[in-house]
Amino acid sequence: MAVLTMDGAGDVLEKAEIAVKGNEIYHVGAAGATPPDFKPGRVLDCPGLVAMPGFVNCHTHAAMTLFRGYADDMPLMSWLKEKIWPLEKHLTPEHIYKGAQLCCAEMVRGGTTTFADMYFAMDRVAQAVEESGLRAVLCRGMIGLGPGAEQSMRESKEFIARWHGGADGRVTAMFGPHAPYTCPPEYLERVIEAAEEAGVGIHIHLAETRDEINEIMEKYGRSPVVLMEETGLFKLPVLAAHCVHLDDRDIEILAGRRVGIAHNPQSNMKLASGVAPVTKLLEAGALVGLGTDGAASNNNLDMMEEMRAAALLQKVHTQNATALPAGEMLRMATAGGAEVLGLGDRVGRIAPGMLADIILIDMRKPHLYPLHDLYAHIAYAAVSSDVHTVIVDGKVVMENRLVMTLDEDAVLAGAQAGAESLIRAKEAEKWQGK
Amino acid sequence: MAVLTMDGAGDVLEKAEIAVKGNEIYHVGAAGATPPDFKPGRVLDCPGLVAMPGFVNCHTHAAMTLFRGYADDMPLMSWLKEKIWPLEKHLTPEHIYKGAQLCCAEMVRGGTTTFADMYFAMDRVAQAVEESGLRAVLCRGMIGLGPGAEQSMRESKEFIARWHGGADGRVTAMFGPHAPYTCPPEYLERVIEAAEEAGVGIHIHLAETRDEINEIMEKYGRSPVVLMEETGLFKLPVLAAHCVHLDDRDIEILAGRRVGIAHNPQSNMKLASGVAPVTKLLEAGALVGLGTDGAASNNNLDMMEEMRAAALLQKVHTQNATALPAGEMLRMATAGGAEVLGLGDRVGRIAPGMLADIILIDMRKPHLYPLHDLYAHIAYAAVSSDVHTVIVDGKVVMENRLVMTLDEDAVLAGAQAGAESLIRAKEAEKWQGK
Repeated sequence: MAVLTMDGAGDVLEKAEIAVKGNEIYHVGAAGATPPDFKPGRVLDCPGLVAMPGFVNCHTHAAMTLFRGYADDMPLMSWLKEKIWPLEKHLTPEHIYKGAQLCCAEMVRGGTTTFADMYFAMDRVAQAVEESGLRAVLCRGMIGLGPGAEQSMRESKEFIARWHGGADGRVTAMFGPHAPYTCPPEYLERVIEAAEEAGVGIHIHLAETRDEINEIMEKYGRSPVVLMEETGLFKLPVLAAHCVHLDDRDIEILAGRRVGIAHNPQSNMKLASGVAPVTKLLEAGALVGLGTDGAASNNNLDMMEEMRAAALLQKVHTQNATALPAGEMLRMATAGGAEVLGLGDRVGRIAPGMLADIILIDMRKPHLYPLHDLYAHIAYAAVSSDVHTVIVDGKVVMENRLVMTLDEDAVLAGAQAGAESLIRAKEAEKWQGK
Repeated sequence: MAVLTMDGAGDVLEKAEIAVKGNEIYHVGAAGATPPDFKPGRVLDCPGLVAMPGFVNCHTHAAMTLFRGYADDMPLMSWLKEKIWPLEKHLTPEHIYKGAQLCCAEMVRGGTTTFADMYFAMDRVAQAVEESGLRAVLCRGMIGLGPGAEQSMRESKEFIARWHGGADGRVTAMFGPHAPYTCPPEYLERVIEAAEEAGVGIHIHLAETRDEINEIMEKYGRSPVVLMEETGLFKLPVLAAHCVHLDDRDIEILAGRRVGIAHNPQSNMKLASGVAPVTKLLEAGALVGLGTDGAASNNNLDMMEEMRAAALLQKVHTQNATALPAGEMLRMATAGGAEVLGLGDRVGRIAPGMLADIILIDMRKPHLYPLHDLYAHIAYAAVSSDVHTVIVDGKVVMENRLVMTLDEDAVLAGAQAGAESLIRAKEAEKWQGK
């Protein structure tokens, strides 16, 4: 078995083995070189497989899998106003649980071992994560305007108190102020204070669309990034999703403040939001990870596709075929993403002492032959179904495409029933003339 | 079973069935509505599957699968000069056969039932196509300069005489002048004459890179498209690959002449060639199909990925989220592609009298739940491994992911051995100081 450790120089090991003790990696090296004091409880034999760290999906909205394929090929605002919000209004915690379960099933199957999520009824999302065996960084999305502002502040605090460090440490929590245009500075100041007190980070949407830039410039006379800097947000660990529309000063701030950036190329393309300056961000030393965004605007949670879209989009956009090469792309989807989520010291690399979040990829497929370069094959040719086995926190969550932690048939049926009940609720409302 | 017929209005049939007689579709309609005189030899039961026409891959270089992952993240000219050409020099017909077999295995697995190919030693490609059960439009790539010019003219004529209408009609042949910058007008005039005589079309690379435009403008004072028009190329059925750099007059010519355009978004992105004006071409009424280009610049032959890249790239490039919607994308990948190849009256739609090239897609996957819109799911969420069963020319070529026509293990081993022998030959030459 080859191992892509994503752990710096010389990070492809041929004919290697990995020893896992509890939830940690104990040793990685040449086959037979594991210290003799290590007694494996179980040995996975992996001919034709390649091991690498599980993917880290830095930004999604798990429950929105229920809206997959419900509204496509629409501009952002009509997509939200005509389609997404009218359905979201009818979402119950039970819907959110069903959607999160579907998300977890899809993520496991695609080799994602950690994801960052922002939505509501997050206790039910955390429950789905706990049951699935995945690792996640969760936050309650907060709107700082109107009557929901206090409720989302209260629910965020309660959620963090209940779940930060939960599910045997697999769940960490953040505050989730939605965006600069939905959370004014005074509200953000309260969020910052609360986050400092709780010792957690902040997940926010930032500089996603041209409209957002215009709105914030008009209102505050500065870019969203500068506004956030001046509000004090970047004193804390921040996960900023999108960061599409940035000028040089914004890039300097994001890099200098070590803000974690979740790049979501497929969502940005599908909603025609724009192309994030990823190459420039990396040159400036910024932390960039990869995310899928929700399935309503992607339409899947497939990190293989997302890597491909990110690399190809930067190449064509910068007119430079050497931009975002395969190795850098894989780093962004694993170790880089872990850094973005503040988990870089435990997640995203295969090295002793790291948490055992490992995926095995089956290379015995026509589209992965012949074998010249593992990085290129995974970044440019593999598909999510090539993920053969998934290990999270030392436990086998999927083996040979069989998910061990979820009853998939029940999850699919639950998601379908949930989506249909939502649409019925929306239709009923229409007939009632509301 | 639902059927996406891609046959005009009302083209999604729920609870439908398809009757196949010989190599043709005899009837398609509601379950139970097949005329009683039809006696099926075999019934495929398809719960949870969706039928649609097989994908039509309008431009590739089958044998270049051997170079998959051999040279990535490089600009076009150094990619060609330092990596691809030095290997191609050592290609034997046997290598080309092995590469074409690998291509066919991958295409079957991804639901492609027809592809258009340009390379050399095309008898061996045709052999691989015949054995695989696929349908293909093949041509010998011709360079109109230097000593190869006469050889490629002679070999093209011989190939067409041997293979046009071959493999029970599954193989058609074309002339394949490589590009305007490798085939001067005098040579093209001879190609046109020969093609008229043989009653076949022409496959050419056209307006792929900015460099090509500059070179042709400098030499001939007009764009490649205008030069081809004036040379008389478009009097014949033409398959023009890429068409990235076009001005309004070029677009008008391509649309007016009904030139078949193979759009290859992933290759154009990966080599940083540019973004083809697909939306404008379609608005002008041009025929546009989808292609993967060779696996050396893609790096797979995956039409699901290619659809996604095409749609998302147009949306972000035109800043219009409604550009290239899902239904149009699926049409381009099936019926539209068949038109581009001159096969539109027999291929690409599920309708009585059409050739029975049908794929069944397995929707029972987390990433395809819940079910709101079949078009959106296939265009934006499905992956190639969701293709469950493939029928070409009325014969089952893959069933439940088992390829019936090829010994896949032997194909993979042959491709690996072939690629390794090529690299050894290149290395040996280096040591010999050639």
